[in-house]
Amino acid sequence: MEDVIRLAHGAGGKMMNDLIREMFAIPLDNPYLRQMADSAVMDPTHGKCRLAVSTDSYTVRPLIFPGGDIGSLAVHGTVNDVAMSGARPLWLTAAFILEEGLPMATLERVVQSMAEAVWEASVQIVAGDTKVVERGHGDGIYINTAGVGVVPDGVMIGPDRARPGDVVLLSGTMGDHGIAVLSKREGLAFETDLLSDSAALNGLVESLLVAAPHVHCLRDPTRGGLAAALNELAQTSAVGIEIEEGQVPVRPAVAAACEMMGFDPLTVANEGKMVVLVPPNESRAALAALHAHPLGRNAARIGFVTEEHPGLVLARTGIGGRRVVDMPLGELLPRIC
Amino acid sequence: MEDVIRLAHGAGGKMMNDLIREMFAIPLDNPYLRQMADSAVMDPTHGKCRLAVSTDSYTVRPLIFPGGDIGSLAVHGTVNDVAMSGARPLWLTAAFILEEGLPMATLERVVQSMAEAVWEASVQIVAGDTKVVERGHGDGIYINTAGVGVVPDGVMIGPDRARPGDVVLLSGTMGDHGIAVLSKREGLAFETDLLSDSAALNGLVESLLVAAPHVHCLRDPTRGGLAAALNELAQTSAVGIEIEEGQVPVRPAVAAACEMMGFDPLTVANEGKMVVLVPPNESRAALAALHAHPLGRNAARIGFVTEEHPGLVLARTGIGGRRVVDMPLGELLPRIC
Repeated sequence: MEDVIRLAHGAGGKMMNDLIREMFAIPLDNPYLRQMADSAVMDPTHGKCRLAVSTDSYTVRPLIFPGGDIGSLAVHGTVNDVAMSGARPLWLTAAFILEEGLPMATLERVVQSMAEAVWEASVQIVAGDTKVVERGHGDGIYINTAGVGVVPDGVMIGPDRARPGDVVLLSGTMGDHGIAVLSKREGLAFETDLLSDSAALNGLVESLLVAAPHVHCLRDPTRGGLAAALNELAQTSAVGIEIEEGQVPVRPAVAAACEMMGFDPLTVANEGKMVVLVPPNESRAALAALHAHPLGRNAARIGFVTEEHPGLVLARTGIGGRRVVDMPLGELLPRIC
Repeated sequence: MEDVIRLAHGAGGKMMNDLIREMFAIPLDNPYLRQMADSAVMDPTHGKCRLAVSTDSYTVRPLIFPGGDIGSLAVHGTVNDVAMSGARPLWLTAAFILEEGLPMATLERVVQSMAEAVWEASVQIVAGDTKVVERGHGDGIYINTAGVGVVPDGVMIGPDRARPGDVVLLSGTMGDHGIAVLSKREGLAFETDLLSDSAALNGLVESLLVAAPHVHCLRDPTRGGLAAALNELAQTSAVGIEIEEGQVPVRPAVAAACEMMGFDPLTVANEGKMVVLVPPNESRAALAALHAHPLGRNAARIGFVTEEHPGLVLARTGIGGRRVVDMPLGELLPRIC
């Protein structure tokens, strides 16, 4: 391992995964942390109900970007992590690290945006904290949200539950959030106005589980994008995943921006999309349920799970070849969420 | 309200309280947040059990101080917030904001210290997150922990439950944490080596509740010290509180440092102490239970709750007078936790 922390250690790729495994997972080891899920699902014997618990800090730059801001993002991101275990998110905590000199009006706008986001997502912020650091020791606003939800009886979803034969669905287009934030940050103007896809997915998950109660895995492809999400599922479940690259929905503006900047859309962050791994007999109903929801209109079937090449993700390319979709190393896009 | 955020907005006093009330409590309002407790206690109808939920970000400077470090502090602080609602803390989340260039060895030491602290406190870190910010946009390590616990049946503790006649107990000496951190930060050498009191109080709370099951309020006097904790209880319960200043235990080294630097020990932060408000008929048993525990050896009865002067805290001074113990304004000690 390196001697010092580098930006890539936070970028959602292999370097971050290695850091987490070596630095955090070993000394803090326990069965819950070992789940390596978006949210940990608690043993029912402890609290009389199966709780899902998750946390995320948000350090996105700029604070306000096309389609959202750090406040709405901090609600959506954690609601989604809780929802990815099939849980109904109920409560969030919100902790702010503010930089001395932050304009009060900026804070007000961000908090108002959080208030709207929790209302739309039907969750409540139940506890909070405020710290202030000296000018130059922060970046305006950092927000941490932790989320608690309840897993409905019978729902069994986890990153270790993918099985050969499962169908891989994607709820919508890839890369919108990452490219929208980056274009704002770098002052790039694209032909189309591109908005972040930042949204709370708990409603979509509820609809999905009515139609397809035996979903095996849910994952929201945030930092590291679809490439990281699929690799994590393939590794945790010890299965192979094959996708058809041409089936992955990507907006033309995102495709153009990625081509211009040399990014692979499969590695760019999303904040309102999810990957669904579902047994084949429920896959049509699952896709129909996604299509019927405003957040799943562009959902697509993009591949399947196989017992071959366990731990590896392969993509069939447009010209008929196959390539390995690697876990991104992690240097791509710092401070994207 | 001011136009920009100042350091005092994070220092645990009146400015912070005003910011929280005006900026956060109104737009994010709900019955849980309105509890204004160290941890919010959830309605049992939602999750089949009464959960206590809390969050705190830790930005202490320096990262390592006499008697602890940011890792152990991040465990103790949140365990204590959950315990202050009488709950048994079970699960923590841990989210790190790391600064590019942080030595890996420092991170390793801090995580190891967290691991020891969770083991000692019998809790588990069940979910985590890592973000990295560019050099100059952080301060080595910021940690957020959120905590979830279960409130035992029959326990009813909250900052609005103080009643006239209640006895005010304090579990130990005041000011150790704040002065220990400050002395390290400013390079001050005192005659006595002073250590932070940082410790997990959940074991002490469990012992206390066996002896005195009808405790009304628990509060850990962190930022803003005993003065802030008592003022918050007096205001939330709309009662008066009177203390005997000479009964508040203060170590000679802390008293000397405070005198030298012009601090009031009642406003200096603690990280392993609590205030207990208990009905008179259980107060002797409560004090005995505190004394019997290693973390309560220096516990003392320091005052009582009265129906007079609601919302005000008065202190009887050594020379027989009475003074108002104000909520500190907040400029005292930034980055103390």
